Amino acid sequence: MIRVAALAGLLLNVPAPGVAVAETMRATGGLGVVVERASGSLVIVDRIAREAIGRVEGLGDLSHASVKFSPDERYAYVFGRDGGLTKVDLLEEAVVAREMQSGNAIGGAISDDGSLVAVANYEPGGVRVFDADTLEMRADIPTAAKVVGLVDMPGNRFVFSLWDAGEIWIADFSGGAEPQITVLADVGANPYDALITEDGRYYIAGLFGEDGLVLVDLWEEEPRARRILDGYGRGEEPLPVYKMPHLEGWAEAGGRFALPAVGRHEVLWLDSQSFEEAGRTKTHGQPVFAVARPDGRQVWVNFAPPGNDTIEVVDTVSGEVIETLVPGPGVLHMEFAPRGREVWMSVRDENRVEIYDTRSFEKLGEIAAESPSGIFFTARAHRMGL
Amino acid sequence: MIRVAALAGLLLNVPAPGVAVAETMRATGGLGVVVERASGSLVIVDRIAREAIGRVEGLGDLSHASVKFSPDERYAYVFGRDGGLTKVDLLEEAVVAREMQSGNAIGGAISDDGSLVAVANYEPGGVRVFDADTLEMRADIPTAAKVVGLVDMPGNRFVFSLWDAGEIWIADFSGGAEPQITVLADVGANPYDALITEDGRYYIAGLFGEDGLVLVDLWEEEPRARRILDGYGRGEEPLPVYKMPHLEGWAEAGGRFALPAVGRHEVLWLDSQSFEEAGRTKTHGQPVFAVARPDGRQVWVNFAPPGNDTIEVVDTVSGEVIETLVPGPGVLHMEFAPRGREVWMSVRDENRVEIYDTRSFEKLGEIAAESPSGIFFTARAHRMGL
Repeated sequence: MIRVAALAGLLLNVPAPGVAVAETMRATGGLGVVVERASGSLVIVDRIAREAIGRVEGLGDLSHASVKFSPDERYAYVFGRDGGLTKVDLLEEAVVAREMQSGNAIGGAISDDGSLVAVANYEPGGVRVFDADTLEMRADIPTAAKVVGLVDMPGNRFVFSLWDAGEIWIADFSGGAEPQITVLADVGANPYDALITEDGRYYIAGLFGEDGLVLVDLWEEEPRARRILDGYGRGEEPLPVYKMPHLEGWAEAGGRFALPAVGRHEVLWLDSQSFEEAGRTKTHGQPVFAVARPDGRQVWVNFAPPGNDTIEVVDTVSGEVIETLVPGPGVLHMEFAPRGREVWMSVRDENRVEIYDTRSFEKLGEIAAESPSGIFFTARAHRMGL
Repeated sequence: MIRVAALAGLLLNVPAPGVAVAETMRATGGLGVVVERASGSLVIVDRIAREAIGRVEGLGDLSHASVKFSPDERYAYVFGRDGGLTKVDLLEEAVVAREMQSGNAIGGAISDDGSLVAVANYEPGGVRVFDADTLEMRADIPTAAKVVGLVDMPGNRFVFSLWDAGEIWIADFSGGAEPQITVLADVGANPYDALITEDGRYYIAGLFGEDGLVLVDLWEEEPRARRILDGYGRGEEPLPVYKMPHLEGWAEAGGRFALPAVGRHEVLWLDSQSFEEAGRTKTHGQPVFAVARPDGRQVWVNFAPPGNDTIEVVDTVSGEVIETLVPGPGVLHMEFAPRGREVWMSVRDENRVEIYDTRSFEKLGEIAAESPSGIFFTARAHRMGL
């Protein structure tokens, strides 16, 4: 009861949905959403004013939700854990379309022309592709396996991995709604997540079953899978894995990729030309996200339990931890302003989002949100693989 | 008379300024502006619908104009050749502030927090810095020389070069309105334009007087100037230079920078790690802009007169010209959709903007505009150095 009362107090400054919205002229380049994982809702934020401006409810199970944006930065596509795909209008602050498209899903992507939204499914597996305007289904790609690491690739294509089957698939929609599928078989055991580099050239998936990663150069005429960092934890007793790291957070910084090791208290560095290991940084705990500040000079890292109250900031030139912040229990996600001046982070168990200056590490503000997890700014609309 | 009549016809489909604007809810992530250089006006475009949605007039001499956007993608700051600095509201389609801040100017930049707008001046020289909200002057930096190559640098800083003095200056506003200035002297003769890499790390200026370039690594504790590609045209008779190339169009692509040579029918390639020359591509004419498609797989090049009716597309892996387009006389500028699916280009002497698919090279549409030059999409708001 106390918790509910406290929340009600926290949320007083969020305008009621739909009130006075239509009369306000509002740009969308500075907007964003915070996922409220427990209540199935989104807080719409103005990142420039550093304030909440609205809330949209009724989005189902958002316990592992992610969000993509339409190219005009008006609509958010919300991928729920329960297979729900919801299109939210950030200007009207309302749900404009919603489909229960599977029983269990794990994220999605939007094509580079903004016309298609794809969803990766665990149950029954496969990828389903929807019209971005109406959410009508345009294509169904059964895989007989759980799909992970689904990302967009330039030219109306999507790339994804099959956890159970150890395969990487490329679905090419450049010819219309009937995709051309390329299958790369036997890439390794249990890809668990993946990224595409910012230029859309390299797809890298983590292999849970093999203590390594797999790389595909999508610029090759006939792309093939190549193993990298094979057995990076070899010869050492693996720790129990408390939470699988997320690879979408990987980013290139100063000619190296920083990536969270699985089951180790380390960030791994990968040379971005040779894809050889280029160093390791010891961290406070098992990293979940290792995200580069947009200028690449710092990588910010959060952690699996029990270390998930802490953030470490690593300098990409020295590889040293240069700052430690302890925002509070359950720091689940970080999102940078697109030009890197500040970073927002969810502090789930304290029902707030904290905002920090990325140079002085000074706290700039906070926003109330119920059990916040993912934070997504509309600037992602203009980037590949985000 | 015929020309005027034709224009009037072409422009019929542009709504009159201010009409019914306020009633329409509109996102700003898909907007852009086309500079009409002869008439001192902007056409506001919806790049997703591929149409003109409005026009704003009274911006003075836009014969060499450039544009920056506020972080929320609502306001365009227009830097006119005559020293005029104008703030345009893309939603209201109106001028909201305008300052004649010098007698002759050559572009500007906006700080990474969106609070400051800086303008590079030829006459009387120097940089003036304005409040982004009100356009009140916040700082005046006299240089006793023409300023070129002004770009934003992370952390509320600006970098620029002095044509007459051969210097590079860094103005740091992170401590407030009184900037801290760092001067790098004797960098070489006549820097004519410059770029900052997308991560804000390297500043590269072209040296007109020395047939080479100068590089500054802004991550160094004490940044210093280093000469690169020294005398790249050595031993050959220089051609007359019909138009100085623009360096803001340079971009990294597959580990190399493509850059337009001065007075040569060549694109130069520069290794992005060593900054050594990494090849040359023979082109149709003297390049003006060499701009990478956002995925870096292609570089699109336009040319100085007399070859300025043509575009060449260079594959960045092979370095070969893979496509030639002839849109018409006076192709002055190109702008890519942020995820690279299409490119817009101004065809000045035919009063239109043409839109091409960047994979099929098919023409997707065109938009009427009077003597169009620069095209700027709001997605630039989220990038450094653009």
